[in-house]
Amino acid sequence: MSDKARAAIVGSTGYGGVELIRLLLQHPKIIIISVISSSQSGVPIADGYPHLNQIVVDDLDAVDIPLIKSKADVVFTATPHGVSTALVPQLLEAGLKVVDLSGDFRLKSGDVYKRWYKKDPGPAELLEQAVYGLSEVFGDEVRGAEWVSNPGCYTTTTLLGLIPAAAAGWIDPKTIITDAKSGVSGAGRGLSMTTHYSETNENFFAYKVNKHQHTPEIEQVLSRVAGEEVIVTFTPHLVPMTRGILATSYATIQGSHTEEDFIQLYREYYAGRPFVRIRPQGTMPATKEVWGSNYCDIGISVDERTGRATIISVTDNLVKGASGQAIQNFNLMMGWDETLGLMMSPVYP
Amino acid sequence: MSDKARAAIVGSTGYGGVELIRLLLQHPKIIIISVISSSQSGVPIADGYPHLNQIVVDDLDAVDIPLIKSKADVVFTATPHGVSTALVPQLLEAGLKVVDLSGDFRLKSGDVYKRWYKKDPGPAELLEQAVYGLSEVFGDEVRGAEWVSNPGCYTTTTLLGLIPAAAAGWIDPKTIITDAKSGVSGAGRGLSMTTHYSETNENFFAYKVNKHQHTPEIEQVLSRVAGEEVIVTFTPHLVPMTRGILATSYATIQGSHTEEDFIQLYREYYAGRPFVRIRPQGTMPATKEVWGSNYCDIGISVDERTGRATIISVTDNLVKGASGQAIQNFNLMMGWDETLGLMMSPVYP
Amino acid sequence: MSDKARAAIVGSTGYGGVELIRLLLQHPKIIIISVISSSQSGVPIADGYPHLNQIVVDDLDAVDIPLIKSKADVVFTATPHGVSTALVPQLLEAGLKVVDLSGDFRLKSGDVYKRWYKKDPGPAELLEQAVYGLSEVFGDEVRGAEWVSNPGCYTTTTLLGLIPAAAAGWIDPKTIITDAKSGVSGAGRGLSMTTHYSETNENFFAYKVNKHQHTPEIEQVLSRVAGEEVIVTFTPHLVPMTRGILATSYATIQGSHTEEDFIQLYREYYAGRPFVRIRPQGTMPATKEVWGSNYCDIGISVDERTGRATIISVTDNLVKGASGQAIQNFNLMMGWDETLGLMMSPVYP
Amino acid sequence: MSDKARAAIVGSTGYGGVELIRLLLQHPKIIIISVISSSQSGVPIADGYPHLNQIVVDDLDAVDIPLIKSKADVVFTATPHGVSTALVPQLLEAGLKVVDLSGDFRLKSGDVYKRWYKKDPGPAELLEQAVYGLSEVFGDEVRGAEWVSNPGCYTTTTLLGLIPAAAAGWIDPKTIITDAKSGVSGAGRGLSMTTHYSETNENFFAYKVNKHQHTPEIEQVLSRVAGEEVIVTFTPHLVPMTRGILATSYATIQGSHTEEDFIQLYREYYAGRPFVRIRPQGTMPATKEVWGSNYCDIGISVDERTGRATIISVTDNLVKGASGQAIQNFNLMMGWDETLGLMMSPVYP
Repeated sequence: MSDKARAAIVGSTGYGGVELIRLLLQHPKIIIISVISSSQSGVPIADGYPHLNQIVVDDLDAVDIPLIKSKADVVFTATPHGVSTALVPQLLEAGLKVVDLSGDFRLKSGDVYKRWYKKDPGPAELLEQAVYGLSEVFGDEVRGAEWVSNPGCYTTTTLLGLIPAAAAGWIDPKTIITDAKSGVSGAGRGLSMTTHYSETNENFFAYKVNKHQHTPEIEQVLSRVAGEEVIVTFTPHLVPMTRGILATSYATIQGSHTEEDFIQLYREYYAGRPFVRIRPQGTMPATKEVWGSNYCDIGISVDERTGRATIISVTDNLVKGASGQAIQNFNLMMGWDETLGLMMSPVYP
Repeated sequence: MSDKARAAIVGSTGYGGVELIRLLLQHPKIIIISVISSSQSGVPIADGYPHLNQIVVDDLDAVDIPLIKSKADVVFTATPHGVSTALVPQLLEAGLKVVDLSGDFRLKSGDVYKRWYKKDPGPAELLEQAVYGLSEVFGDEVRGAEWVSNPGCYTTTTLLGLIPAAAAGWIDPKTIITDAKSGVSGAGRGLSMTTHYSETNENFFAYKVNKHQHTPEIEQVLSRVAGEEVIVTFTPHLVPMTRGILATSYATIQGSHTEEDFIQLYREYYAGRPFVRIRPQGTMPATKEVWGSNYCDIGISVDERTGRATIISVTDNLVKGASGQAIQNFNLMMGWDETLGLMMSPVYP
Repeated sequence: MSDKARAAIVGSTGYGGVELIRLLLQHPKIIIISVISSSQSGVPIADGYPHLNQIVVDDLDAVDIPLIKSKADVVFTATPHGVSTALVPQLLEAGLKVVDLSGDFRLKSGDVYKRWYKKDPGPAELLEQAVYGLSEVFGDEVRGAEWVSNPGCYTTTTLLGLIPAAAAGWIDPKTIITDAKSGVSGAGRGLSMTTHYSETNENFFAYKVNKHQHTPEIEQVLSRVAGEEVIVTFTPHLVPMTRGILATSYATIQGSHTEEDFIQLYREYYAGRPFVRIRPQGTMPATKEVWGSNYCDIGISVDERTGRATIISVTDNLVKGASGQAIQNFNLMMGWDETLGLMMSPVYP
Repeated sequence: MSDKARAAIVGSTGYGGVELIRLLLQHPKIIIISVISSSQSGVPIADGYPHLNQIVVDDLDAVDIPLIKSKADVVFTATPHGVSTALVPQLLEAGLKVVDLSGDFRLKSGDVYKRWYKKDPGPAELLEQAVYGLSEVFGDEVRGAEWVSNPGCYTTTTLLGLIPAAAAGWIDPKTIITDAKSGVSGAGRGLSMTTHYSETNENFFAYKVNKHQHTPEIEQVLSRVAGEEVIVTFTPHLVPMTRGILATSYATIQGSHTEEDFIQLYREYYAGRPFVRIRPQGTMPATKEVWGSNYCDIGISVDERTGRATIISVTDNLVKGASGQAIQNFNLMMGWDETLGLMMSPVYP
């Protein structure tokens, strides 16, 4: 066991944390050494998650930096927004590697963070320093990094669908509209009326219209990739299902490019990156086709009548949209193959 | 009973037909006199729909024009596309009133019909003559008409959301994109892999991207209302639920209009039409909030960052999107109050 | 309007209360005069239930007995267990008619109530006096009563399935086992982990095994009907759907009775009672076939191999299992036809 | 690769076959060498199952015994009932190891098979010879066997819940009633009205009451274990979810045994068998807690009022109820650790 990286998970009573446990249990080079909860320390993990009975038999640890330091090499922080702001600096100072799954270090500008998250931002130098772990796009920066800010679920799905075309200048950045739909697990395990079964089942609705905090994250990355300031319209909706995100992105095409051209462009952009799969022409991905896996599947339709491209990208919001990509990033940080421990096929049906 | 209109329903083994039965059973001035099926005549209705046990005790009738004529005043044709093309002319010739729920007489151009439906169109003079029964918009034409072509479910939902702004010139028609989501009942009772439970549950996907036959129907009406040719991007998606459509429409705002302005505009446009409810500012409708009812609820968000309006409209696809609006149109045809028999509140939860 | 009964609804922020609103809005001889909430008085009803926008425009009233007395003829108390214990005596003293939907006055024995509900029982004389409103069985007692205790949802479904056979002595009461399954709305609108969407969707489980408070209610009625003390095994389960209860009851047959005999016995027992439908031999009811309606459908299988009868009964837990039966009981109390306002057909699909 | 067992999968277009692919892809000592379909040979596998894009890139093979023999060491037959009857003898004759997932060789009596399956049985000597692969109970017989008949999904779930008590004589076999509930994937990928989404969603119903073909399979094994002829009442129901079976079994207790005694008995019976987890007293398993995994979780309630035990057991019908147990059996056949390739934790939520 001594050759394995020892991982601690903070925030393990949420869905991001428990999904990290599921995935890390299968990882050949990582061992879970501590599962940490600020609210439930001392309680057996399986009390709150009976599916882990006889699988993870330990009690939850408290948030205790020296204790973590003594046990772990890397900390995955699957904490609510605002908690990482204070916690990550302490973990870094203790010399730990960190993959932060929260939104606290994704935005470079503290002002923008404050405007969209309604919370105080972390230290400016850490915001600046944070490597943004969209693995297929910024993998070179992730490789060897000491810590990484893991992208949001909507952001990952949307950006993987838009970046090849935006980077190539094939779409007009001023026309980008993303209509996104997520399963309910994205809202976490905290109780609320919008995640109450009888309210959500057999129902479909939009929320945080023009106000979702993943909007500036999408804009920051698209601006960097497109080389100009990009402002997008982004609308999240809740789907009566547990897992899965589908982003339908629209943009006006610049230049003369066919559907075949787009598919070819995307295949080349993601060549050698097994977790992004470009669908054959004429077919579109469904969320279930990546369920439980780290894949992001993308389909593209070019409409000559309107001059627009419609790009559809899907992920499992808890895997590629959170815990899976976090592990992929840690694989890169360690210089390992990015697919290590993540090549499980989707669960179907 | 002699003062009631006698209705026959053709295509009653589909969901549109069986929903007509449910609604007409509650109508104070209509009596169901015959339920007709080309494939199952002679079979008791409750054999295929056990929920109608002891409620509708008759056998299904065959498609027999003289028989229908001898029994009925009005025929609701809830038939598959292509069947009404031949059937409606015969019913009209027999002197029957008709509300056609199929797509066969919605498009004025036979060429456009053929391109999108891949079937031969009906007679050009009937296409021309058909009154398009979007009740809140073309009610004056419906009033007193002998027959009506009932709008599509996606179309109704999308158009009620877009028309007030398009008619007022407040949005740029060239920028309209509608991202629509429907429950599975919209696909009907015919078996298919995409409506097989294990494939559709816990799944979300787009279909017929840039190819759905409701696209030209939306364009035809928007063009008429906007006074210029309108081409739109329209994407339908399947939601793992049975009933409900939500259309999220995007357009660039022309002129200087606030969210309050839009809401005021819509309230005035639909004043006196109880089935369209404009939501208070800052709230958005959910499909469940119109479930089982004839309402169409609309919410509007104006985003100053992007200069776009996001308009969200919802209906129950089988009621306002099909059978309910068909009855509303028949009420208008008869000169009755349009709400007759339709004021049931949504079923919640 | 002066000839209509004026109804107040207490507890209208729960699902039982809001379903009373939906059903009473369609009742020809009842008018809703006040909607009451202890926690939300002064707030518009549609704030908490947007589907009622422009339908019910009043604010919620407080619980104020003199005010209720001044407005109403009858009070429907859709209150949590324990609240009716104190409230119902005050309403009765004020001379109001009452239909109590809570469990507080269903059990004749205060001791049994205390053991299963873990709360103090109501006054013994009221427990004794309460008419138990299982409409099809005790309708004669309900007719003309001043107040009624409305049965539980599981109880209604189970008892309607068992009583004809138990009363006839065709099944051995000592062998009765009921395995019951309910949609999630039965758990109410209060938030809890077991009704959190991501925990309940794509999940099925039993709860309160051998401990559910409807058990003694079933036993009390079966004992009365069978003429001997009956103890049953009762297991409730949660189904990932919103509405519907299905009870599968098992008992050993006494004497020699075929499946045809049982069906004939049940048809005779419920002759003239339109809300109970006995299915044709060889078919079994599904919860969806009574969805949104006041029907209870029953199917029976007799197995010669085991000598047991399997009886399957279904209701919509919020209609026949709660608000619909409450109105049915009030119809009987007023000497009206029991079906008044309740003959809507099930919503399908 | 030469040290790996080479597996062929027949019937891979069904859910049992595709789940075998998912699980075998993770197995350290098995390699999938051929995926076979009688109806779709020559077609790329990912055409019918897009989630396997870029994961399984081969075309489907035809059913060709010499070809299979030339490639494979073992054949998993995930074929419809009736197909294995003819196919398995040919595979055995060719010297291949076989794990048959169909029902064709589970029953020892050809007459009983014919009565329940309505098909002709396989050769009597093969029925007799077939090792019944309920791994935790008959593992000693499976170890080293050349071929195995894999138990049914309902059967596995029910039997693992009943056998320890039945074998110990703690329950009266004449009183056993099992009320079982299954997700829809158990019905396979073939289209039918009862698996059509709009019919099945928000619905719950029983089917094949007293007629399900897993009944004699349960009886055969319980009779063997209890040492007397056992006849049971068994009722399957369909739950609106994709995966999972929950069996609620009832029996009268013989002798004086507490809930603690039962739990202790079960823990001892399954000691050393990691896939069966006995829940702590007072808790009951949910189907979601074994979702996607090979676990069978069991909870027990003893009711002193009725003298009955209520035993609840859950599995994922496609894993422990089919493909997972098939691999577990093959592990035993090969003399390997039974958990090889199967220790993935449940997917939650």
